[in-house]
Amino acid sequence: MTMPMGEVPQVRLPRPYLIFVGDAQSAVAAKTGAGVCHWAPEACTAQWRLGADAYDIGLPDMRPVEAVAAGARALLIGVAPVGGKLPAHWVPCMIDALEAGLDLVSGLHTQLESVPEIAAKAVELGRNLHNVRHSGLSFPVASGRKRSGKRLLTVGTDCAIGKKYAALAIARGLRDRGVSADFRATGQTGIMIAGGGVALDAVVSDFLAGAAECLSPDTAADHWDVIEGQGSLFHPAYAAVTVGLINGSQPDALVLCHEPGRPCISDFPDYPIVPLDVAIPRYLDIARLTNPAAMFVGVSLNTSALPEAEARALCTVIAGETGLPTTDPLRFGVEPILERMLAWA
Amino acid sequence: MTMPMGEVPQVRLPRPYLIFVGDAQSAVAAKTGAGVCHWAPEACTAQWRLGADAYDIGLPDMRPVEAVAAGARALLIGVAPVGGKLPAHWVPCMIDALEAGLDLVSGLHTQLESVPEIAAKAVELGRNLHNVRHSGLSFPVASGRKRSGKRLLTVGTDCAIGKKYAALAIARGLRDRGVSADFRATGQTGIMIAGGGVALDAVVSDFLAGAAECLSPDTAADHWDVIEGQGSLFHPAYAAVTVGLINGSQPDALVLCHEPGRPCISDFPDYPIVPLDVAIPRYLDIARLTNPAAMFVGVSLNTSALPEAEARALCTVIAGETGLPTTDPLRFGVEPILERMLAWA
Repeated sequence: MTMPMGEVPQVRLPRPYLIFVGDAQSAVAAKTGAGVCHWAPEACTAQWRLGADAYDIGLPDMRPVEAVAAGARALLIGVAPVGGKLPAHWVPCMIDALEAGLDLVSGLHTQLESVPEIAAKAVELGRNLHNVRHSGLSFPVASGRKRSGKRLLTVGTDCAIGKKYAALAIARGLRDRGVSADFRATGQTGIMIAGGGVALDAVVSDFLAGAAECLSPDTAADHWDVIEGQGSLFHPAYAAVTVGLINGSQPDALVLCHEPGRPCISDFPDYPIVPLDVAIPRYLDIARLTNPAAMFVGVSLNTSALPEAEARALCTVIAGETGLPTTDPLRFGVEPILERMLAWA
Repeated sequence: MTMPMGEVPQVRLPRPYLIFVGDAQSAVAAKTGAGVCHWAPEACTAQWRLGADAYDIGLPDMRPVEAVAAGARALLIGVAPVGGKLPAHWVPCMIDALEAGLDLVSGLHTQLESVPEIAAKAVELGRNLHNVRHSGLSFPVASGRKRSGKRLLTVGTDCAIGKKYAALAIARGLRDRGVSADFRATGQTGIMIAGGGVALDAVVSDFLAGAAECLSPDTAADHWDVIEGQGSLFHPAYAAVTVGLINGSQPDALVLCHEPGRPCISDFPDYPIVPLDVAIPRYLDIARLTNPAAMFVGVSLNTSALPEAEARALCTVIAGETGLPTTDPLRFGVEPILERMLAWA
């Protein structure tokens, strides 16, 4: 999915990518690369695997020199190593990529410049190192001024519950219907998919809502910015990120993402997942500070743990309880949510 | 007010101070220095004014060499210049202070190191430059784990409404009664007063609640940490800072700070101040995520715009409406709030 960027101050990434899969053995380890490949296939030239047993994300296998000949402009690290650090045995691969003519794109905690060989080679050859988590951008304090155009934001009862997926599916669904829409990325994988965005969790707190304002600027009255949610209002560590994102985004429409049966906030066993009928009014309390007209337009369920018939039945039950279109975007698409958005807007 | 620091990762400032008043002509311009002098007189050796018409914060006048002889260890910039930048004509004063043997302490946006003459002189003489807004500290992601001891946090219907003053008055009041209590500073002036703390608005969003957790660590069961509030849940730019501070502080007790008659959020005319009966349950919603027992123990009013009799009558009215001890700490002290805290704890 390619997104026009307007005048938004944000990371901009060179594309298309050679996706570095390295020695990842599983879909989970390679999920960044697989996500970019799924949502932005036109931005992916090839994959680079370090062995035949590495996970295949479904792109042609190339090494950097071939990928450059095929049009690639950057090597994207599509693997999430344990601890978020760049393993030493990948360094020669990064050097090969720079020598072949590629920039590097990384979402790791390790900044690429912190590896001396990579830093020196990039300077020597005039290549750019893109650390998606560390944009170096600065943002103003939020103005609170109402902006033109329409905005949808995905929120959740927890982290890692489908907020990015739902936003991407809704943005694609709108565009497939001929509605002007942009996906606005707020996290590292989303930024790699969109080719731009702002990693909000890396912004200094005072400027968080201001950064969110910058990410969805004034636009045409019938245009939708579909904004990737972050964190959860019910998360003891990340609720502040969620609140700043909501306040700055001024969403007209919210979609609540939820996983039926998940007992507690991931990695926080003392924090139970709140029921939907608690979460919905609490989110509206926050959203209506900067947009008094904010409303929910749907519930997005992650039903991967359930058989399909049960998943369908659960969507019907939750739609009845909440009065909101309810779907699993991955299994059943987002049509009911699009219908509500377009009927209501 | 001198505060023990325990093992908290935070800014620590060398004291006592020579307070630089510069050419400030008014109490407003010199309010940082005046606040430090009011709340931490034992940490203030002298003031340095650049002319007889500069504002007098009530300390002996000294120049750096005299102040060092009298025991001063740092020059504290006690003036807030327009735009937060260091005026060029102050640079020779900073150099004089370094040469006399003082470190520099600044809460300005300008980092002291960014002025080449100051940076070079500090390196040459081995002095430290303390930028309270830019700690360089790093913090963990919040754990959400309940900590021992008791915590009070001041919150507000707006910024600049008395949260720091109320927290300082409550901490002092507890200590005057022989109750173990620390003031925990979260903003630049508070940090200068306490000699330590964390400027939370300068922390990266992902680590905001984690920084707030670090600031009030496990302590004795009957000890109170009295934490300086920041921002407001109803502020379109700073609500995220407020939420991260609440979640990480896990306050047992909250005090709501309010200015009767203020029509809207300062500098945000489209955002009316919310009524107390709206603010109180909304703050409890946020606070009870990490501390289900959180309660309000008082209302702190800034009644400076009212005659004293009206101010007293208003405190009575609001106490009746909210069921909470209500006072103006500056005019009437904080005894009713201390009574509630100690009766209830």
